[in-house]
Amino acid sequence: MSTGVRLIGLDWGTSSLRAYLYDGDGKVMASRQQAWGIRQLPEGGFVGALQAITADWPACVAVAAGMVGSRQGWREVPYVALPADAASIAHGMLRVDDCSSHALWIAPGLQRHQPADVMRGEETQIIGALARQPLYQANMRFVLPGTHSKWATVIDGRIVAFDTVMTGEMYALLIKHSILGAGLPAEPPAAFASETFVRGVLAARDSGAEGIFSRLFSTRALMLAGELAPAQVPDFLSGLLIGEEFRIARLRGGGSVSPLCLIGEASLCERYALAAHHFSYAPPAVIDDAAAQGLWQLASAAGLLAQAKLHSFSGVTT
Amino acid sequence: MSTGVRLIGLDWGTSSLRAYLYDGDGKVMASRQQAWGIRQLPEGGFVGALQAITADWPACVAVAAGMVGSRQGWREVPYVALPADAASIAHGMLRVDDCSSHALWIAPGLQRHQPADVMRGEETQIIGALARQPLYQANMRFVLPGTHSKWATVIDGRIVAFDTVMTGEMYALLIKHSILGAGLPAEPPAAFASETFVRGVLAARDSGAEGIFSRLFSTRALMLAGELAPAQVPDFLSGLLIGEEFRIARLRGGGSVSPLCLIGEASLCERYALAAHHFSYAPPAVIDDAAAQGLWQLASAAGLLAQAKLHSFSGVTT
Repeated sequence: MSTGVRLIGLDWGTSSLRAYLYDGDGKVMASRQQAWGIRQLPEGGFVGALQAITADWPACVAVAAGMVGSRQGWREVPYVALPADAASIAHGMLRVDDCSSHALWIAPGLQRHQPADVMRGEETQIIGALARQPLYQANMRFVLPGTHSKWATVIDGRIVAFDTVMTGEMYALLIKHSILGAGLPAEPPAAFASETFVRGVLAARDSGAEGIFSRLFSTRALMLAGELAPAQVPDFLSGLLIGEEFRIARLRGGGSVSPLCLIGEASLCERYALAAHHFSYAPPAVIDDAAAQGLWQLASAAGLLAQAKLHSFSGVTT
Repeated sequence: MSTGVRLIGLDWGTSSLRAYLYDGDGKVMASRQQAWGIRQLPEGGFVGALQAITADWPACVAVAAGMVGSRQGWREVPYVALPADAASIAHGMLRVDDCSSHALWIAPGLQRHQPADVMRGEETQIIGALARQPLYQANMRFVLPGTHSKWATVIDGRIVAFDTVMTGEMYALLIKHSILGAGLPAEPPAAFASETFVRGVLAARDSGAEGIFSRLFSTRALMLAGELAPAQVPDFLSGLLIGEEFRIARLRGGGSVSPLCLIGEASLCERYALAAHHFSYAPPAVIDDAAAQGLWQLASAAGLLAQAKLHSFSGVTT
């Protein structure tokens, strides 16, 4: 191993842990992933997970983001207020005292008041995306689809607003546990039925100010009427829920549609891009993952890269 | 037993079966209830359930309404279109051929197109309520809270529109299976916290055209911020969901608030009455149950009461 500046980044969420080892230029030299989310830690808990996932990596400064900083995480790191940028988030980082193997810092999440909302981990992805595409700093709407989708607005390099929509969780609940999922084929359809999905998107769009809460049951009614095959229900419902996200977003934008950047898994981003089209957005930019870059940015903003260098040198001298 | 006109009414839903025996004036002489909904039939299936719940009652004409007429029921009875009244619903009734113990007729449900919606059983309650309160026939909005809440509009004695909102099911899903229910006390609070409930109602009301889909997660955020105690989450969420029903209803009414009649269980109706107040409705009328009366009305409209008489007489002569 070289004695250059090194950093370990940890994207540590509810269900998974990803670790990155960077070289002195912020390039990822190695990465590892485990299903060691904070709710399913291996033996040895947080310490054991960190040691195992960084086994044979050099001891160096580590920066973590995500649910690891929540009340159920390793150490609760208080939320940072809006507007937020890399500097203010880095300023809110806390060092974990009971980590002997690394100098471990955990990044805070963001909090909004009125109405109350929180995020942990997505802010780091947004910081990473802004570093990758500096043009996005002027004015960009970031959408991070998932269990709890986040819509965040960046203006002049700062996250000024965000909202959480429980789209992914709601989809899973309705398919698995509600009347809407009753009588569906056991296996989900192999191919994405984009036409059926769009039908759901348009139903949400055309619901006007009412929204989809009173339209969810129509999924069942359409199936009973033979107008929707049981195998089509999942994609229709997906369209209805994602369409609702866009219906709300358009309302907030006062009808205007600012540029969008999607950050997430490709097949999910495909759905969002399709929905965006039907809400008259320009084709969104898509970034599959920006956590590694965000963690590096936070470490840099916190002045930890200099420390990393120091740590590295001290490692050489002792 | 007298030889007067007799009828058996069956309110047969997904999770329960209630049976009524009427005298010749439509007065309920006896009633029985079992947890023999169509998804949890006793041994002997539909026939066995009917025979057991009417044991030692005279053989006579029987009228059933509810999910017993659905595809998963005893016999599927096609939906009747809007506008609908006792006559058109009665006209859509079908006789069950494989019921040897009774002359059994099953009432149809109602179907709406654009957007698709269906009901089975609630139409019978509304018919019963209209018979009990003829003044409601001119113009009344009926609300039947529950797993799948129904809002139905009656004008000039006919059901002209209705909507289903999955309020009760959504509440149960979110509390039992979602992140919003995580970390709540194992036991639900004993007393109804009306102030917390109203806080949810107002959050829904003040969400404007956005609705609550993007506010659901705020329940979690408020709890994390210490602004909502874990024990308050259920009533807040209940207020949010019921408030959303009223937000949508007010939009449909073009801002006007027509008189409301609640049909349902008392403690649930109490919540709806409270929400109605905060949406500027006049205090709603409350009817706890109108199924028995509705079944009698449908039998009458179908001309089955004359048959019942005939059946009764023929029983005497053979």
